[in-house]
Amino acid sequence: MRSGLGSVHCADGVTMAKKLWSGCFKQKTDAAVEAFTASLPFDHRLYRYDIQGSIAHCRMLARQRIISRKDAQRIIGALREIEQELDEGKLALRPDCEDIHMLIESRLIEKIGQVGGKLHTARSRNDQIALDLSLFLRDAITMTGEHLTRVQRELITAARRNIDVILPGFTHLQHAQPVLLAHHLMAYFEMMERDWERLAACYTRANRMPLGAGALAGTPHPIDRRYVAQLLGYPDITSNSMDTVSDRDVLVEYCSIAAMIMMHLSRFCEELVLWSSPEFRFIQIADAFCTGSSIMPQKKNPDVAELIRGKTGRVYGNLVALLTLLKGLPLTYNRDLQEDKPALFDSVDTVLQCLDIFARMLPRISFNRERMAQACSSGFLTATDLADMLAATGMPFRTAHEIVGKIVAYCSEHNKQLDMLSPDELRRFSPAITPAMVARLTPAASVTSRMSEGGTALNKVRAAIAQAAKKLSRHEKLH
Amino acid sequence: MRSGLGSVHCADGVTMAKKLWSGCFKQKTDAAVEAFTASLPFDHRLYRYDIQGSIAHCRMLARQRIISRKDAQRIIGALREIEQELDEGKLALRPDCEDIHMLIESRLIEKIGQVGGKLHTARSRNDQIALDLSLFLRDAITMTGEHLTRVQRELITAARRNIDVILPGFTHLQHAQPVLLAHHLMAYFEMMERDWERLAACYTRANRMPLGAGALAGTPHPIDRRYVAQLLGYPDITSNSMDTVSDRDVLVEYCSIAAMIMMHLSRFCEELVLWSSPEFRFIQIADAFCTGSSIMPQKKNPDVAELIRGKTGRVYGNLVALLTLLKGLPLTYNRDLQEDKPALFDSVDTVLQCLDIFARMLPRISFNRERMAQACSSGFLTATDLADMLAATGMPFRTAHEIVGKIVAYCSEHNKQLDMLSPDELRRFSPAITPAMVARLTPAASVTSRMSEGGTALNKVRAAIAQAAKKLSRHEKLH
Amino acid sequence: MRSGLGSVHCADGVTMAKKLWSGCFKQKTDAAVEAFTASLPFDHRLYRYDIQGSIAHCRMLARQRIISRKDAQRIIGALREIEQELDEGKLALRPDCEDIHMLIESRLIEKIGQVGGKLHTARSRNDQIALDLSLFLRDAITMTGEHLTRVQRELITAARRNIDVILPGFTHLQHAQPVLLAHHLMAYFEMMERDWERLAACYTRANRMPLGAGALAGTPHPIDRRYVAQLLGYPDITSNSMDTVSDRDVLVEYCSIAAMIMMHLSRFCEELVLWSSPEFRFIQIADAFCTGSSIMPQKKNPDVAELIRGKTGRVYGNLVALLTLLKGLPLTYNRDLQEDKPALFDSVDTVLQCLDIFARMLPRISFNRERMAQACSSGFLTATDLADMLAATGMPFRTAHEIVGKIVAYCSEHNKQLDMLSPDELRRFSPAITPAMVARLTPAASVTSRMSEGGTALNKVRAAIAQAAKKLSRHEKLH
Amino acid sequence: MRSGLGSVHCADGVTMAKKLWSGCFKQKTDAAVEAFTASLPFDHRLYRYDIQGSIAHCRMLARQRIISRKDAQRIIGALREIEQELDEGKLALRPDCEDIHMLIESRLIEKIGQVGGKLHTARSRNDQIALDLSLFLRDAITMTGEHLTRVQRELITAARRNIDVILPGFTHLQHAQPVLLAHHLMAYFEMMERDWERLAACYTRANRMPLGAGALAGTPHPIDRRYVAQLLGYPDITSNSMDTVSDRDVLVEYCSIAAMIMMHLSRFCEELVLWSSPEFRFIQIADAFCTGSSIMPQKKNPDVAELIRGKTGRVYGNLVALLTLLKGLPLTYNRDLQEDKPALFDSVDTVLQCLDIFARMLPRISFNRERMAQACSSGFLTATDLADMLAATGMPFRTAHEIVGKIVAYCSEHNKQLDMLSPDELRRFSPAITPAMVARLTPAASVTSRMSEGGTALNKVRAAIAQAAKKLSRHEKLH
Repeated sequence: MRSGLGSVHCADGVTMAKKLWSGCFKQKTDAAVEAFTASLPFDHRLYRYDIQGSIAHCRMLARQRIISRKDAQRIIGALREIEQELDEGKLALRPDCEDIHMLIESRLIEKIGQVGGKLHTARSRNDQIALDLSLFLRDAITMTGEHLTRVQRELITAARRNIDVILPGFTHLQHAQPVLLAHHLMAYFEMMERDWERLAACYTRANRMPLGAGALAGTPHPIDRRYVAQLLGYPDITSNSMDTVSDRDVLVEYCSIAAMIMMHLSRFCEELVLWSSPEFRFIQIADAFCTGSSIMPQKKNPDVAELIRGKTGRVYGNLVALLTLLKGLPLTYNRDLQEDKPALFDSVDTVLQCLDIFARMLPRISFNRERMAQACSSGFLTATDLADMLAATGMPFRTAHEIVGKIVAYCSEHNKQLDMLSPDELRRFSPAITPAMVARLTPAASVTSRMSEGGTALNKVRAAIAQAAKKLSRHEKLH
Repeated sequence: MRSGLGSVHCADGVTMAKKLWSGCFKQKTDAAVEAFTASLPFDHRLYRYDIQGSIAHCRMLARQRIISRKDAQRIIGALREIEQELDEGKLALRPDCEDIHMLIESRLIEKIGQVGGKLHTARSRNDQIALDLSLFLRDAITMTGEHLTRVQRELITAARRNIDVILPGFTHLQHAQPVLLAHHLMAYFEMMERDWERLAACYTRANRMPLGAGALAGTPHPIDRRYVAQLLGYPDITSNSMDTVSDRDVLVEYCSIAAMIMMHLSRFCEELVLWSSPEFRFIQIADAFCTGSSIMPQKKNPDVAELIRGKTGRVYGNLVALLTLLKGLPLTYNRDLQEDKPALFDSVDTVLQCLDIFARMLPRISFNRERMAQACSSGFLTATDLADMLAATGMPFRTAHEIVGKIVAYCSEHNKQLDMLSPDELRRFSPAITPAMVARLTPAASVTSRMSEGGTALNKVRAAIAQAAKKLSRHEKLH
Repeated sequence: MRSGLGSVHCADGVTMAKKLWSGCFKQKTDAAVEAFTASLPFDHRLYRYDIQGSIAHCRMLARQRIISRKDAQRIIGALREIEQELDEGKLALRPDCEDIHMLIESRLIEKIGQVGGKLHTARSRNDQIALDLSLFLRDAITMTGEHLTRVQRELITAARRNIDVILPGFTHLQHAQPVLLAHHLMAYFEMMERDWERLAACYTRANRMPLGAGALAGTPHPIDRRYVAQLLGYPDITSNSMDTVSDRDVLVEYCSIAAMIMMHLSRFCEELVLWSSPEFRFIQIADAFCTGSSIMPQKKNPDVAELIRGKTGRVYGNLVALLTLLKGLPLTYNRDLQEDKPALFDSVDTVLQCLDIFARMLPRISFNRERMAQACSSGFLTATDLADMLAATGMPFRTAHEIVGKIVAYCSEHNKQLDMLSPDELRRFSPAITPAMVARLTPAASVTSRMSEGGTALNKVRAAIAQAAKKLSRHEKLH
Repeated sequence: MRSGLGSVHCADGVTMAKKLWSGCFKQKTDAAVEAFTASLPFDHRLYRYDIQGSIAHCRMLARQRIISRKDAQRIIGALREIEQELDEGKLALRPDCEDIHMLIESRLIEKIGQVGGKLHTARSRNDQIALDLSLFLRDAITMTGEHLTRVQRELITAARRNIDVILPGFTHLQHAQPVLLAHHLMAYFEMMERDWERLAACYTRANRMPLGAGALAGTPHPIDRRYVAQLLGYPDITSNSMDTVSDRDVLVEYCSIAAMIMMHLSRFCEELVLWSSPEFRFIQIADAFCTGSSIMPQKKNPDVAELIRGKTGRVYGNLVALLTLLKGLPLTYNRDLQEDKPALFDSVDTVLQCLDIFARMLPRISFNRERMAQACSSGFLTATDLADMLAATGMPFRTAHEIVGKIVAYCSEHNKQLDMLSPDELRRFSPAITPAMVARLTPAASVTSRMSEGGTALNKVRAAIAQAAKKLSRHEKLH
């Protein structure tokens, strides 16, 4: 019978011949088709998950007496050897093995003969790949969460280290109001905390064991799906076999979250690029995190920040790729679904790389507090403070806003700062303005005054950092 | 002072003059700029949320003695009148009011004079629009969840009504194995259940009250953000003022979920279109849900299903629009963010419309059980069953698969069905094949045999439906 | 027979009853379905094109004696009246008329009785909408081209007016080399010139007359498609009737070009936002093109530039919407295609608005030449010039680059500019450096030296502007 | 001086040390940064273009006496050796060489010493990569055009071979009117012809030589850009140096066209999948172009068609990636642009693969003419013909449409075909209906009647095929 399946060999001058599904076929698959349809070039990275899943499946088959305990032991032993062969690069990725499942199963049969053919009992590639992807995604989500946490930790460190640095807060890239740099940095902490929450929610949906759905309809063999789930650390199994083999929701969900993470990083990187410019000079990124020019000897470029910003595109693109792929596909499995992996893998890899390098770069950024302070000193960053003080005297805020607007126009025309105006000049705009008010129009006083919850006052920011650190400590207990 | 703000009037031959922020400006805004930058044409639909938020803000201001109780009462009274004016279409959307906030505030000042100018104390449009969007989104998420639930309920009804109908299950749009129609329908229940879970998770992130972030830095006024939250039914407030005014995550998250919902609907609609075709004839959609042709008198087209499938594009597009918009934006508020609303509103409207019409259409579809049964009778839908039976005798599944493959090839060549083969013919392929096996190669027996959890056997599907109904009952208690 | 079609009335208490295709239907269309499938709310804007096409079709029918000349005259007369009714807003958009074609045809029959029913001879809505879209697109492309040309003209004007202004050229948002502002502005001219070329190419594809394809297969009536084409100013007709009714390529092509135009504008707008910031202060945008803050009295924000940048998202999104829509649609017409219009219209409107406001804003930007000059004076903008001078002496450029790199490092450490180094200091790095070289390290000399074709030297830029003006003059002769 | 550049070695136990731009840097680049920013893993495939461009640049430098003829000869000789080393896989892709330009230049200096450093005179990596991309794109466009042409040629062959086969034309996936299969196939020819036109137009924009733009401002060396253009077969050069180094338009344009090509293929593949289904059975794809199931022995799946349809997603995604990348980038070169290549390469590779396999598959599809004929025989495919005949008698088409609609409803109710109705039955609907009319209600007569230009009548389709073949012959002369 074994020869019926052909002589199956891999690597090192070995041949692996007939397709495992070729029973009803009369023609050999065209070589161009083989190359075109092969997923092995990218799905081989799932091999550890595939073998892990196969071992669990095999243990279940034996426990349910669908195959004998002895057969199971031979199969599991051979699978462990194959894993090692793949770890060590000794098993070549043969083009005639269309996917990682076929490579491993062919190799298994080659090693232990026809008993290897029992492994696929009560299983289809359709639910097998669903399991591989689920196992992969659980790890990918966990690692993404850990990388996010690293960046968040660096944000807390940077915020603490620069707790008293003030810079202009911007709206419309115009000076708006002075804020603590720590407050600015912690804004990104919050974004990433939401990303982390989304990952945690996505994990619960990835954490349902799909094997046992068969090709689409379930299986007549007396399998125990919950035992397989238990072996693989799943708290639950999927509900509907047809949905199970055609569902790629968690991939899309991960890619959506990845897009959001990149969006957040792109905003931060935009600021790093701006802040590195000669016009801003708010920060200096260490030489080790910059690169130079092939022609301009003076250049130090914030390449890492630029590249992360640029990589946002590919992660958005992968999301579009997956959504497009799935649009209008009838149930259940269609070969289109094979294209889910390149998009997913690329988003996972890109997000992990970007978070990793970002976490490394953050502590290598030095913040130029003098330059930031100087940027706060001119302009009318504290104009709102004056309007707020007037409003606090009972003047309608709209009226106060208009009066201060006129003072600003006056200052601009006469090239003065707010605190350069004489009491007489101020009285001309409103009798309600007192010298004491004007004395409080400093960046430091402005920052200190914003005591509302979530505001930029020092004690509020300190409290926010403490709260953030507490949240982080909870991250580490998850998954 | 009121004249200082100009004579503010709306509708009915009324003028509303100076911008509320024009203090430091020397030139009037160009009319083309006014038209280009106005968000009133689309953000006016937020007016109820804007007024609801303003009333809560005003009550808090009074409670914290930032404004007097008497002023607050006048403001709230006038806001309620304005709401009614807008409800009744009596307050025109004047082009010189750039957004809904300005329209309402200008009208307020017009109605009660300068005291109206006190409402904006301790508030900026930046946190005001964040609140409006959050209130809108909570409703949008709730409604989307309810519509999803309606569709799910119809799926359960249809599954129960057709509990014993068998059709060919497809992979690659080829006949794979027979399944219960109810099982097929419940696959969509599962997709929507995940959509519902995602909406519920998104709701928790929308359910944080943003007001009090001010322009970006918080406010010096002694506000009580938690009181505002309580008045508006929020369990929590946002954490960081800079993040709060620049964050659009929940919009993106909603639009991602919307894209996934549409993806699921597009798959279902694809099937409805296929099943309505003369080649399939698996279903008939009621005349009331079809339309005809201007030229071909015989046509009845499944337009609703096609249009939903087509509308998938715009919901994907809206997600891309939002992600693009946010890419690389520095903190905090930038005017780009105004463009968040058209994309969000369109996705909310489209998803609600599609779910609504889908819920109405489902009970108007009649399933053609005879035609489905006939489709199961030819082809080799039960070939896997034979392989599984052979595997159950201890034969390696791979071997069994190959043998059955050869039988199928033989049948194809001789134009026979599996159950037409004589015992002699069968024995030629394998002595293990018994007449009893062949007798069990009917669609009904095949379905019945797939007893694994999540499989298509009748009792499994019944249990799944019961389980699904239980989940639905929990939906209704949410939010 | 007229009563057989029901009493068809529009507007003003009028009823329009039976669907024009309802012959084989037994149920009335569900009201929710009517609302869901209606395209009238957005396709009504095509009415002029629809009537224009119908008149041409009708003239052809008469010329070919498919209908009588007298009937044709009555139909054409009534169509012109309907156009006027629509121009004047007198013909209500009745929800029971599913699209603009049905509205007009129903009104026609109402006006002139059953003879109106002859207009649709040898025509289907499938080729009718293809014609409407083609006519619309020709106009849209032409207008987009004209708006682009306006922006290009303003660029030339601004370049000429600021011909001698020097600013730092940037790479990686770091100072790279000094360039003429005019050169920088003309870079955008080039981008738009390519956009214009793409529009012109797209026009040739929009310029093929589709009517006569019928529902999908052509028509048995002896029509003359080329005569219709001639009447409507088309040089050619489409080739394959099945392709004609399912083809939306030109819409996608337009939306791709629109995305590219917005991408170019977004880059320019990003620069305007940067240049307006207090850190750059390279430009000032006129008050009339800025808006203020509801809370910060000092703010003047570059809202127009921000909004254009933000609107890039929706134009990208529309392209994705169309591509998604068309993915995997079988031939020929499917109702999904109705969704082509919202995406197309939105891209056309957005691009026209953005180009229009941009053309208006450009002349209202004042460039701060002193501030730009000052930005050129520090840093090491002319370091490449020194390396180039050394290379010109025969030193390998790589060597020169490294030497100058070390000089820059030395200057940074000692807080000096290149031109502050003494001859002795310079000799330490290389004997090849002469005082004459150092004397030429000014921004002006640097700019002047870059005489290569396409370079920033004044005479090259002047020539480029002249060349550009010549190209523009050719634009106006197109279409 | 050579040691000043460090000991540069590649491959085979060789070291390549200092960055070529490291002059002003004090820290070594962090290894993680090196890995993160390296483009060598993907841009190495540009090596032939890079060397081709360098040789042309070098010849120009010598001709302009910027370097000596002897130096030029040594450089060119070494470049040719390096090309061979790379061809033969002998030059390792060292991670410390950040990109292909640096790898080649470092190797050059290693081979011939400091004279190799002269190659980069009057050139920057910014214009160098622009040239590499342009050369790559010209080839990519040409190859894509050739592959398109191959598919078109197969379409013509298939159309000719099946010239008399009739199948139901579909709208809304419902039977509409009978059409020639050849006509259906030629619809795809038309789509691809437009794709080809777009490629040709894109080629003209790729066909402008960018080298000589320098880093961004041009160069002071007396280069001759037109000579380089001539050497590399470019008819023209780019116009503005700043635009040249920041422009990625042609990449976006190619990716847009690629998206359109995939959209067209996805529609065709959707049909192939439908037509292969047991319900349609319109076609059979050769075994060599199908694959089987790991579990279901009877399955033959149209995998190639499915995969192409699925790959549409990644090509759409690449377009989104590029557009996102470019959104809001200020001039001129930013490191984000490095991310242009993965998206571009993937679209080029995917489109070429898909077109290639599609061209191979087309001749391996057999069309089932009996089954198609049978599908035409039932239903009311010729109902429009009857309405058209009535309209030809002078009856308004609307009236004719309604009458035939009622006949169809009557037939449906009584389970009859149109041609089964007795003269008496027909007269009940309209006295205008004659037996001769009914006799002409066959699919063949219907097809024959549609003689309008672009229609499905046999002679029209024959003419269209001849016309198409003529167009194809012109393709081959292009580029």
